[in-house]
Amino acid sequence: MAREQLYVIKIGGNVLDHPALLESFLRDFTAVRGNKILIHGGGKIATRIGDKLGIVSNYVKGRRITDADTIDLVTMVYGGLVNKQLVAKLQHLGCPAIGMTGADGNSINAVRRPVKDVDFGFVGDIVPEGVNVPLLKVLISTNTVPVFAALTHSEGSMLNTNADTIASTLAIALSHEYDVRLIFCFEKKGVLKDVNDEESVITHVTEERYKELLHENALADGILPKIENAFAAIRQGVKEVLIGHADDLLQNTGKSTAGTLITQ
Amino acid sequence: MAREQLYVIKIGGNVLDHPALLESFLRDFTAVRGNKILIHGGGKIATRIGDKLGIVSNYVKGRRITDADTIDLVTMVYGGLVNKQLVAKLQHLGCPAIGMTGADGNSINAVRRPVKDVDFGFVGDIVPEGVNVPLLKVLISTNTVPVFAALTHSEGSMLNTNADTIASTLAIALSHEYDVRLIFCFEKKGVLKDVNDEESVITHVTEERYKELLHENALADGILPKIENAFAAIRQGVKEVLIGHADDLLQNTGKSTAGTLITQ
Repeated sequence: MAREQLYVIKIGGNVLDHPALLESFLRDFTAVRGNKILIHGGGKIATRIGDKLGIVSNYVKGRRITDADTIDLVTMVYGGLVNKQLVAKLQHLGCPAIGMTGADGNSINAVRRPVKDVDFGFVGDIVPEGVNVPLLKVLISTNTVPVFAALTHSEGSMLNTNADTIASTLAIALSHEYDVRLIFCFEKKGVLKDVNDEESVITHVTEERYKELLHENALADGILPKIENAFAAIRQGVKEVLIGHADDLLQNTGKSTAGTLITQ
Repeated sequence: MAREQLYVIKIGGNVLDHPALLESFLRDFTAVRGNKILIHGGGKIATRIGDKLGIVSNYVKGRRITDADTIDLVTMVYGGLVNKQLVAKLQHLGCPAIGMTGADGNSINAVRRPVKDVDFGFVGDIVPEGVNVPLLKVLISTNTVPVFAALTHSEGSMLNTNADTIASTLAIALSHEYDVRLIFCFEKKGVLKDVNDEESVITHVTEERYKELLHENALADGILPKIENAFAAIRQGVKEVLIGHADDLLQNTGKSTAGTLITQ
Protein backbone atom coordinates (compact mmCIF):
# COMPACT_ATOMS: atom_id res chain seq x y z
CA MET A 1 0.00 0.00 0.00
CA ALA A 2 1.44 3.37 -1.01
CA ARG A 3 2.14 5.55 1.99
CA GLU A 4 0.86 9.09 2.17
CA GLN A 5 3.23 12.02 1.98
CA LEU A 6 3.68 14.35 4.95
CA TYR A 7 5.46 17.70 4.98
CA VAL A 8 7.01 18.68 8.31
CA ILE A 9 7.81 22.37 7.90
CA LYS A 10 9.88 24.50 10.27
CA ILE A 11 9.52 28.25 9.91
CA GLY A 12 12.47 30.41 10.94
CA GLY A 13 12.34 33.28 13.40
CA ASN A 14 13.13 35.91 10.75
CA VAL A 15 9.84 35.15 9.00
CA LEU A 16 7.82 35.43 12.24
CA ASP A 17 9.33 38.85 12.79
CA HIS A 18 8.27 40.35 9.46
CA PRO A 19 4.49 40.72 8.99
CA ALA A 20 4.64 40.86 5.19
CA LEU A 21 6.95 37.83 4.90
CA LEU A 22 4.79 35.96 7.39
CA GLU A 23 1.54 36.74 5.58
CA SER A 24 3.02 35.52 2.32
CA PHE A 25 4.46 32.40 3.98
CA LEU A 26 1.13 31.52 5.61
CA ARG A 27 -0.67 31.88 2.27
CA ASP A 28 1.83 29.51 0.68
CA PHE A 29 1.63 27.12 3.63
CA THR A 30 -2.17 27.06 3.27
CA ALA A 31 -1.76 26.30 -0.43
CA VAL A 32 0.52 23.29 0.19
CA ARG A 33 -1.54 20.25 -0.77
CA GLY A 34 -1.64 17.15 1.37
CA ASN A 35 -0.65 16.39 4.94
CA LYS A 36 1.43 18.99 6.74
CA ILE A 37 2.69 20.12 10.12
CA LEU A 38 4.19 23.51 11.03
CA ILE A 39 6.79 24.13 13.75
CA HIS A 40 7.76 27.57 15.05
CA GLY A 41 9.72 29.28 17.82
CA GLY A 42 9.51 32.96 18.64
CA GLY A 43 12.78 33.80 20.37
CA LYS A 44 13.07 37.43 19.31
CA ILE A 45 9.49 38.23 20.34
CA ALA A 46 10.10 36.52 23.71
CA THR A 47 13.22 38.61 24.21
CA ARG A 48 11.32 41.84 23.48
CA ILE A 49 8.48 41.01 25.88
CA GLY A 50 10.95 39.68 28.45
CA ASP A 51 12.82 43.00 28.34
CA LYS A 52 9.58 44.81 29.23
CA LEU A 53 8.93 42.36 32.07
CA GLY A 54 12.49 42.66 33.36
CA ILE A 55 13.32 39.06 32.42
CA VAL A 56 16.87 38.99 31.10
CA SER A 57 17.64 36.42 28.43
CA ASN A 58 20.91 34.59 28.93
CA TYR A 59 22.43 32.33 26.30
CA VAL A 60 25.11 29.66 26.51
CA LYS A 61 26.29 28.07 23.25
CA GLY A 62 23.37 29.69 21.41
CA ARG A 63 20.75 28.17 23.71
CA ARG A 64 18.58 30.22 26.02
CA ILE A 65 19.09 29.52 29.73
CA THR A 66 15.55 28.88 30.88
CA ASP A 67 15.00 29.82 34.52
CA ALA A 68 11.54 29.79 36.14
CA ASP A 69 10.64 33.27 34.87
CA THR A 70 11.93 32.45 31.40
CA ILE A 71 9.92 29.24 31.00
CA ASP A 72 6.79 31.22 31.93
CA LEU A 73 7.82 33.85 29.38
CA VAL A 74 8.36 31.42 26.50
CA THR A 75 5.25 29.44 27.45
CA MET A 76 3.27 32.68 27.12
CA VAL A 77 4.96 33.87 23.96
CA TYR A 78 5.57 30.67 21.97
CA GLY A 79 2.56 28.68 23.21
CA GLY A 80 0.18 31.62 23.53
CA LEU A 81 0.87 34.76 21.54
CA VAL A 82 2.77 33.42 18.51
CA ASN A 83 1.01 30.06 18.28
CA LYS A 84 -2.53 31.44 18.51
CA GLN A 85 -1.83 34.34 16.14
CA LEU A 86 -0.50 31.85 13.59
CA VAL A 87 -3.49 29.55 14.08
CA ALA A 88 -6.04 32.38 13.83
CA LYS A 89 -4.38 33.66 10.62
CA LEU A 90 -4.19 30.17 9.11
CA GLN A 91 -7.84 29.49 9.94
CA HIS A 92 -8.77 32.76 8.22
CA LEU A 93 -6.82 31.67 5.14
CA GLY A 94 -8.71 28.37 5.11
CA CYS A 95 -6.05 26.14 6.66
CA PRO A 96 -7.59 23.95 9.43
CA ALA A 97 -4.79 24.59 11.93
CA ILE A 98 -4.70 23.41 15.53
CA GLY A 99 -2.09 24.88 17.88
CA MET A 100 -0.07 22.48 20.01
CA THR A 101 2.82 22.26 22.41
CA GLY A 102 4.42 18.99 23.42
CA ALA A 103 2.22 18.99 26.54
CA ASP A 104 -1.01 19.00 24.54
CA GLY A 105 -2.19 15.45 24.18
CA ASN A 106 1.24 14.46 25.52
CA SER A 107 2.29 14.91 21.93
CA ILE A 108 6.01 15.33 22.73
CA ASN A 109 7.27 13.93 25.99
CA ALA A 110 10.66 15.11 27.25
CA VAL A 111 12.95 15.00 30.27
CA ARG A 112 14.49 18.03 31.85
CA ARG A 113 18.09 18.24 30.64
CA PRO A 114 20.50 16.89 33.29
CA VAL A 115 22.99 19.45 34.63
CA LYS A 116 26.58 18.85 33.41
CA ASP A 117 28.80 21.90 32.79
CA VAL A 118 25.80 24.17 32.33
CA ASP A 119 22.38 24.21 34.03
CA PHE A 120 20.09 25.04 31.14
CA GLY A 121 17.11 25.17 33.52
CA PHE A 122 13.70 24.24 32.14
CA VAL A 123 15.01 22.80 28.89
CA GLY A 124 13.60 19.55 27.56
CA ASP A 125 15.37 16.72 25.78
CA ILE A 126 12.81 14.63 23.94
CA VAL A 127 12.69 11.01 25.11
CA PRO A 128 12.92 8.09 22.66
CA GLU A 129 9.39 7.16 21.54
CA GLY A 130 8.34 10.49 23.08
CA VAL A 131 6.09 11.48 20.17
CA ASN A 132 2.39 10.58 20.42
CA VAL A 133 2.11 9.30 16.85
CA PRO A 134 -1.45 7.90 17.20
CA LEU A 135 -2.82 11.30 18.26
CA LEU A 136 -1.03 13.10 15.43
CA LYS A 137 -2.33 10.50 12.96
CA VAL A 138 -5.89 11.11 14.19
CA LEU A 139 -5.49 14.85 13.75
CA ILE A 140 -3.86 14.57 10.33
CA SER A 141 -6.39 12.02 9.10
CA THR A 142 -9.29 14.29 10.13
CA ASN A 143 -7.83 17.06 7.98
CA THR A 144 -6.39 19.06 10.86
CA VAL A 145 -2.99 20.74 10.59
CA PRO A 146 -0.91 20.68 13.80
CA VAL A 147 1.04 23.89 14.44
CA PHE A 148 3.70 23.26 17.07
CA ALA A 149 5.28 25.81 19.37
CA ALA A 150 8.82 24.87 20.46
CA LEU A 151 7.77 23.59 23.88
CA THR A 152 7.72 20.15 25.47
CA HIS A 153 6.87 19.01 28.99
CA SER A 154 7.89 16.69 31.78
CA GLU A 155 6.53 15.92 35.22
CA GLY A 156 4.04 18.74 35.27
CA SER A 157 6.36 21.47 33.95
CA MET A 158 6.60 23.04 30.55
CA LEU A 159 10.07 22.81 28.99
CA ASN A 160 11.85 24.82 26.31
CA THR A 161 13.06 22.75 23.35
CA ASN A 162 14.82 23.90 20.19
CA ALA A 163 12.39 24.22 17.28
CA ASP A 164 14.76 22.50 14.79
CA THR A 165 15.00 19.56 17.18
CA ILE A 166 11.22 19.36 17.51
CA ALA A 167 10.87 19.42 13.73
CA SER A 168 13.43 16.62 13.25
CA THR A 169 11.95 14.52 16.05
CA LEU A 170 8.40 14.83 14.71
CA ALA A 171 9.64 14.02 11.20
CA ILE A 172 11.49 10.91 12.39
CA ALA A 173 8.60 9.63 14.53
CA LEU A 174 6.05 10.19 11.77
CA SER A 175 8.28 8.55 9.14
CA HIS A 176 7.00 5.21 10.47
CA GLU A 177 3.61 6.15 9.07
CA TYR A 178 4.24 8.60 6.24
CA ASP A 179 6.78 9.42 3.52
CA VAL A 180 8.17 12.51 5.22
CA ARG A 181 9.82 15.52 3.64
CA LEU A 182 11.28 17.70 6.40
CA ILE A 183 11.60 21.32 5.25
CA PHE A 184 13.64 23.97 7.04
CA CYS A 185 12.59 27.43 5.86
CA PHE A 186 15.21 30.09 6.47
CA GLU A 187 16.47 33.31 4.89
CA LYS A 188 18.71 31.77 2.21
CA LYS A 189 17.73 29.82 -0.89
CA GLY A 190 19.53 26.70 0.30
CA VAL A 191 23.02 25.41 0.98
CA LEU A 192 25.27 27.72 -0.99
CA LYS A 193 28.56 26.76 -2.58
CA ASP A 194 29.62 30.40 -2.27
CA VAL A 195 28.04 32.16 0.74
CA ASN A 196 28.25 35.46 -1.13
CA ASP A 197 26.35 34.15 -4.14
CA GLU A 198 22.64 33.52 -3.44
CA GLU A 199 22.39 31.67 -6.77
CA SER A 200 25.08 29.07 -5.94
CA VAL A 201 22.56 26.68 -4.36
CA ILE A 202 23.69 23.08 -4.18
CA THR A 203 20.47 21.49 -5.37
CA HIS A 204 21.00 17.92 -4.23
CA VAL A 205 23.19 16.41 -1.53
CA THR A 206 23.53 12.68 -0.95
CA GLU A 207 25.81 11.14 1.69
CA GLU A 208 28.32 10.44 -1.09
CA ARG A 209 28.11 13.98 -2.48
CA TYR A 210 28.39 15.33 1.09
CA LYS A 211 31.71 13.53 1.56
CA GLU A 212 32.99 15.03 -1.69
CA LEU A 213 31.87 18.53 -0.64
CA LEU A 214 33.59 18.13 2.73
CA HIS A 215 36.73 16.94 0.95
CA GLU A 216 36.60 19.95 -1.38
CA ASN A 217 36.09 22.20 1.69
CA ALA A 218 33.16 23.62 -0.27
CA LEU A 219 30.73 24.24 2.61
CA ALA A 220 30.54 27.18 5.02
CA ASP A 221 30.96 26.18 8.68
CA GLY A 222 27.52 27.45 9.71
CA ILE A 223 25.72 25.05 7.42
CA LEU A 224 27.49 21.89 8.60
CA PRO A 225 25.30 21.26 11.68
CA LYS A 226 22.17 21.66 9.54
CA ILE A 227 23.41 19.04 7.06
CA GLU A 228 24.57 16.70 9.83
CA ASN A 229 21.11 16.97 11.41
CA ALA A 230 19.51 16.32 8.05
CA PHE A 231 21.46 13.09 7.56
CA ALA A 232 20.70 12.05 11.14
CA ALA A 233 16.98 12.41 10.33
CA ILE A 234 17.39 10.48 7.07
CA ARG A 235 19.25 7.63 8.79
CA GLN A 236 16.25 7.38 11.14
CA GLY A 237 13.64 7.10 8.43
CA VAL A 238 12.91 10.55 7.04
CA LYS A 239 12.78 10.28 3.26
CA GLU A 240 13.95 13.76 2.28
CA VAL A 241 15.17 16.90 4.00
CA LEU A 242 14.97 20.23 2.25
CA ILE A 243 16.76 23.41 3.28
CA GLY A 244 15.42 26.48 1.52
CA HIS A 245 14.01 29.98 1.57
CA ALA A 246 10.63 30.64 3.19
CA ASP A 247 9.56 32.32 -0.07
CA ASP A 248 10.18 29.10 -2.01
CA LEU A 249 7.89 26.88 0.08
CA LEU A 250 5.49 26.01 -2.73
CA GLN A 251 8.29 25.04 -5.10
CA ASN A 252 10.02 23.16 -2.30
CA THR A 253 6.93 21.04 -1.65
CA GLY A 254 6.85 20.08 -5.31
CA LYS A 255 8.97 17.81 -7.51
CA SER A 256 11.34 20.41 -8.89
CA THR A 257 12.76 21.99 -5.75
CA ALA A 258 14.47 25.37 -5.50
CA GLY A 259 16.43 24.71 -2.31
CA THR A 260 18.86 22.00 -1.26
CA LEU A 261 17.32 18.54 -1.26
CA ILE A 262 19.10 16.06 0.99
CA THR A 263 18.50 12.35 0.50
CA GLN A 264 20.22 9.07 1.24
CA MET B 1 -29.02 3.81 21.88
CA ALA B 2 -28.06 5.25 25.24
CA ARG B 3 -26.10 8.43 24.88
CA GLU B 4 -22.80 8.93 26.64
CA GLN B 5 -22.49 11.40 29.47
CA LEU B 6 -20.24 14.45 29.13
CA TYR B 7 -19.17 16.83 31.89
CA VAL B 8 -18.46 20.40 30.78
CA ILE B 9 -16.66 21.94 33.73
CA LYS B 10 -15.84 25.61 34.21
CA ILE B 11 -13.21 26.43 36.80
CA GLY B 12 -13.39 29.84 38.49
CA GLY B 13 -10.58 32.36 38.67
CA ASN B 14 -10.21 32.06 42.44
CA VAL B 15 -9.09 28.43 42.05
CA LEU B 16 -6.51 29.30 39.37
CA ASP B 17 -5.04 31.87 41.75
CA HIS B 18 -4.41 29.49 44.66
CA PRO B 19 -1.81 26.78 43.98
CA ALA B 20 -3.06 24.42 46.72
CA LEU B 21 -6.72 24.72 45.67
CA LEU B 22 -5.71 24.27 42.05
CA GLU B 23 -3.61 21.18 42.71
CA SER B 24 -6.50 19.60 44.61
CA PHE B 25 -9.00 20.57 41.91
CA LEU B 26 -6.82 19.11 39.13
CA ARG B 27 -6.48 15.84 41.06
CA ASP B 28 -10.26 15.66 41.38
CA PHE B 29 -10.76 16.63 37.74
CA THR B 30 -8.38 13.84 36.71
CA ALA B 31 -10.39 11.40 38.86
CA VAL B 32 -13.71 12.30 37.20
CA ARG B 33 -14.69 9.24 35.17
CA GLY B 34 -15.99 9.51 31.65
CA ASN B 35 -16.01 12.25 29.05
CA LYS B 36 -15.06 15.72 30.23
CA ILE B 37 -14.02 19.19 29.08
CA LEU B 38 -12.47 21.95 31.18
CA ILE B 39 -12.90 25.71 30.60
CA HIS B 40 -10.81 28.40 32.29
CA GLY B 41 -10.07 32.11 32.18
CA GLY B 42 -7.18 33.78 33.97
CA GLY B 43 -8.23 37.41 34.42
CA LYS B 44 -6.34 38.15 37.61
CA ILE B 45 -3.09 36.72 36.27
CA ALA B 46 -3.53 38.73 33.05
CA THR B 47 -4.05 41.89 35.11
CA ARG B 48 -0.86 41.24 37.11
CA ILE B 49 1.26 40.64 33.99
CA GLY B 50 -0.46 43.52 32.19
CA ASP B 51 0.49 45.84 35.05
CA LYS B 52 4.15 44.90 34.59
CA LEU B 53 3.88 45.48 30.83
CA GLY B 54 2.12 48.83 31.32
CA ILE B 55 -1.15 47.51 29.86
CA VAL B 56 -3.98 48.99 31.89
CA SER B 57 -7.10 46.87 32.25
CA ASN B 58 -10.36 48.76 31.78
CA TYR B 59 -13.74 47.27 32.58
CA VAL B 60 -17.25 48.29 31.56
CA LYS B 61 -20.16 46.37 33.13
CA GLY B 62 -17.74 43.77 34.46
CA ARG B 63 -16.25 43.00 31.05
CA ARG B 64 -12.68 43.77 30.12
CA ILE B 65 -12.27 46.29 27.33
CA THR B 66 -9.97 44.46 24.96
CA ASP B 67 -7.79 46.81 22.93
CA ALA B 68 -4.96 45.55 20.67
CA ASP B 69 -2.44 45.32 23.52
CA THR B 70 -4.98 43.61 25.76
CA ILE B 71 -5.92 40.90 23.26
CA ASP B 72 -2.21 40.10 22.91
CA LEU B 73 -1.96 40.02 26.72
CA VAL B 74 -4.89 37.65 27.25
CA THR B 75 -3.84 35.51 24.28
CA MET B 76 -0.45 35.08 25.98
CA VAL B 77 -1.81 34.55 29.46
CA TYR B 78 -5.02 32.54 28.91
CA GLY B 79 -3.93 30.65 25.79
CA GLY B 80 -0.26 30.29 26.72
CA LEU B 81 0.72 30.53 30.36
CA VAL B 82 -2.43 29.34 32.15
CA ASN B 83 -3.59 26.87 29.53
CA LYS B 84 -0.23 25.12 29.12
CA GLN B 85 0.46 25.03 32.85
CA LEU B 86 -2.92 23.38 33.39
CA VAL B 87 -2.31 20.91 30.57
CA ALA B 88 1.21 20.01 31.78
CA LYS B 89 -0.09 19.45 35.32
CA LEU B 90 -3.05 17.39 34.13
CA GLN B 91 -0.80 15.25 31.93
CA HIS B 92 1.45 14.64 34.92
CA LEU B 93 -1.59 13.54 36.95
CA GLY B 94 -2.54 11.12 34.19
CA CYS B 95 -5.30 13.14 32.52
CA PRO B 96 -4.85 13.17 28.71
CA ALA B 97 -5.46 16.91 28.35
CA ILE B 98 -5.13 18.93 25.15
CA GLY B 99 -5.11 22.73 25.37
CA MET B 100 -7.37 24.65 23.03
CA THR B 101 -8.66 28.08 22.18
CA GLY B 102 -11.60 28.70 19.88
CA ALA B 103 -9.11 29.27 17.04
CA ASP B 104 -7.60 25.79 17.35
CA GLY B 105 -9.31 23.53 14.87
CA ASN B 106 -11.82 26.37 14.43
CA SER B 107 -13.41 24.87 17.53
CA ILE B 108 -15.33 28.04 18.46
CA ASN B 109 -16.04 30.54 15.74
CA ALA B 110 -17.11 34.05 16.77
CA VAL B 111 -17.72 37.52 15.41
CA ARG B 112 -16.21 40.65 16.82
CA ARG B 113 -18.88 42.33 18.97
CA PRO B 114 -20.52 45.22 17.08
CA VAL B 115 -20.03 48.65 18.64
CA LYS B 116 -23.20 50.06 20.25
CA ASP B 117 -22.85 52.17 23.41
CA VAL B 118 -19.48 50.65 24.22
CA ASP B 119 -16.63 49.49 21.99
CA PHE B 120 -15.48 46.34 23.75
CA GLY B 121 -12.63 45.97 21.26
CA PHE B 122 -11.41 42.45 20.45
CA VAL B 123 -14.33 40.69 22.15
CA GLY B 124 -16.00 37.75 20.45
CA ASP B 125 -19.65 36.77 20.37
CA ILE B 126 -19.94 33.14 19.42
CA VAL B 127 -21.88 32.58 16.20
CA PRO B 128 -24.79 30.10 16.01
CA GLU B 129 -23.44 26.70 15.01
CA GLY B 130 -20.00 28.14 15.82
CA VAL B 131 -18.79 25.07 17.70
CA ASN B 132 -16.85 22.45 15.73
CA VAL B 133 -18.69 19.47 17.22
CA PRO B 134 -17.15 16.84 14.89
CA LEU B 135 -13.59 17.79 15.96
CA LEU B 136 -14.51 17.76 19.66
CA LYS B 137 -16.19 14.36 19.20
CA VAL B 138 -13.03 12.99 17.60
CA LEU B 139 -10.92 14.27 20.50
CA ILE B 140 -13.32 13.02 23.17
CA SER B 141 -13.75 9.63 21.50
CA THR B 142 -9.97 9.15 21.34
CA ASN B 143 -9.77 9.67 25.10
CA THR B 144 -8.44 13.22 24.91
CA VAL B 145 -9.67 15.90 27.32
CA PRO B 146 -10.06 19.38 25.78
CA VAL B 147 -8.99 22.22 28.08
CA PHE B 148 -10.33 25.51 26.75
CA ALA B 149 -8.93 28.97 27.39
CA ALA B 150 -11.55 31.73 27.20
CA LEU B 151 -10.59 32.83 23.68
CA THR B 152 -12.34 32.64 20.34
CA HIS B 153 -11.40 34.00 16.91
CA SER B 154 -12.73 35.71 13.83
CA GLU B 155 -11.21 36.80 10.53
CA GLY B 156 -7.64 36.13 11.56
CA SER B 157 -7.79 37.77 14.98
CA MET B 158 -8.00 36.24 18.43
CA LEU B 159 -10.99 37.45 20.45
CA ASN B 160 -11.70 37.58 24.18
CA THR B 161 -14.87 35.73 25.23
CA ASN B 162 -16.29 35.25 28.71
CA ALA B 163 -15.42 31.80 30.10
CA ASP B 164 -18.95 31.15 31.44
CA THR B 165 -20.30 31.88 27.96
CA ILE B 166 -17.82 29.49 26.37
CA ALA B 167 -18.77 26.78 28.86
CA SER B 168 -22.51 27.22 28.18
CA THR B 169 -22.01 27.34 24.43
CA LEU B 170 -19.88 24.20 24.36
CA ALA B 171 -22.41 22.44 26.62
CA ILE B 172 -25.32 23.38 24.37
CA ALA B 173 -23.55 22.41 21.14
CA LEU B 174 -22.37 19.08 22.55
CA SER B 175 -25.83 18.29 23.98
CA HIS B 176 -26.77 17.17 20.45
CA GLU B 177 -24.33 14.30 20.92
CA TYR B 178 -24.05 13.70 24.67
CA ASP B 179 -26.08 13.89 27.88
CA VAL B 180 -24.37 17.01 29.20
CA ARG B 181 -23.97 18.11 32.80
CA LEU B 182 -22.58 21.66 32.82
CA ILE B 183 -20.76 22.37 36.09
CA PHE B 184 -19.75 25.83 37.29
CA CYS B 185 -17.12 25.54 40.03
CA PHE B 186 -16.89 28.63 42.21
CA GLU B 187 -16.10 29.55 45.80
CA LYS B 188 -19.50 28.74 47.36
CA LYS B 189 -21.15 25.38 47.86
CA GLY B 190 -24.05 26.28 45.59
CA VAL B 191 -27.02 28.61 45.41
CA LEU B 192 -27.61 29.62 49.03
CA LYS B 193 -30.97 30.45 50.55
CA ASP B 194 -29.14 32.61 53.09
CA VAL B 195 -25.93 34.15 51.68
CA ASN B 196 -24.47 34.20 55.18
CA ASP B 197 -25.07 30.49 55.73
CA GLU B 198 -22.80 28.25 53.62
CA GLU B 199 -24.94 25.26 54.60
CA SER B 200 -28.20 26.69 53.23
CA VAL B 201 -27.62 25.22 49.74
CA ILE B 202 -30.73 24.86 47.61
CA THR B 203 -30.03 21.36 46.33
CA HIS B 204 -32.39 21.23 43.37
CA VAL B 205 -33.97 23.95 41.28
CA THR B 206 -36.51 23.28 38.53
CA GLU B 207 -38.21 26.01 36.49
CA GLU B 208 -41.26 25.61 38.75
CA ARG B 209 -39.21 25.79 41.93
CA TYR B 210 -37.33 28.79 40.50
CA LYS B 211 -40.60 30.70 40.09
CA GLU B 212 -41.48 29.92 43.71
CA LEU B 213 -38.06 31.08 44.93
CA LEU B 214 -38.39 34.31 42.93
CA HIS B 215 -41.85 34.82 44.39
CA GLU B 216 -40.51 34.24 47.92
CA ASN B 217 -37.68 36.69 47.15
CA ALA B 218 -35.41 33.95 48.44
CA LEU B 219 -32.44 34.45 46.09
CA ALA B 220 -29.56 36.92 46.33
CA ASP B 221 -29.32 39.25 43.31
CA GLY B 222 -25.84 38.08 42.32
CA ILE B 223 -26.98 34.54 41.70
CA LEU B 224 -29.90 35.39 39.40
CA PRO B 225 -27.85 35.74 36.18
CA LYS B 226 -26.19 32.38 36.88
CA ILE B 227 -29.57 30.67 37.26
CA GLU B 228 -31.00 32.45 34.21
CA ASN B 229 -28.01 31.27 32.17
CA ALA B 230 -28.47 27.77 33.51
CA PHE B 231 -32.09 27.63 32.35
CA ALA B 232 -31.09 29.13 28.99
CA ALA B 233 -28.65 26.22 28.55
CA ILE B 234 -31.28 23.69 29.64
CA ARG B 235 -33.86 25.07 27.24
CA GLN B 236 -31.26 24.55 24.47
CA GLY B 237 -30.62 20.90 25.27
CA VAL B 238 -28.24 20.69 28.24
CA LYS B 239 -29.59 18.02 30.58
CA GLU B 240 -28.34 19.37 33.92
CA VAL B 241 -26.50 22.40 35.21
CA LEU B 242 -24.72 22.27 38.53
CA ILE B 243 -23.44 25.25 40.48
CA GLY B 244 -21.07 24.26 43.26
CA HIS B 245 -17.78 24.56 45.07
CA ALA B 246 -14.54 23.58 43.31
CA ASP B 247 -13.77 21.31 46.28
CA ASP B 248 -16.97 19.32 45.67
CA LEU B 249 -16.26 18.40 42.05
CA LEU B 250 -16.16 14.65 42.60
CA GLN B 251 -19.44 14.64 44.48
CA ASN B 252 -20.94 16.99 41.92
CA THR B 253 -20.08 14.63 39.06
CA GLY B 254 -21.86 11.81 40.91
CA LYS B 255 -25.52 11.01 41.59
CA SER B 256 -25.81 12.58 45.02
CA THR B 257 -24.66 16.14 44.38
CA ALA B 258 -23.48 18.63 47.00
CA GLY B 259 -24.20 21.80 45.05
CA THR B 260 -27.27 23.18 43.34
CA LEU B 261 -28.57 20.94 40.57
CA ILE B 262 -30.66 22.77 37.99
CA THR B 263 -32.90 20.76 35.69
CA GLN B 264 -36.01 21.28 33.60
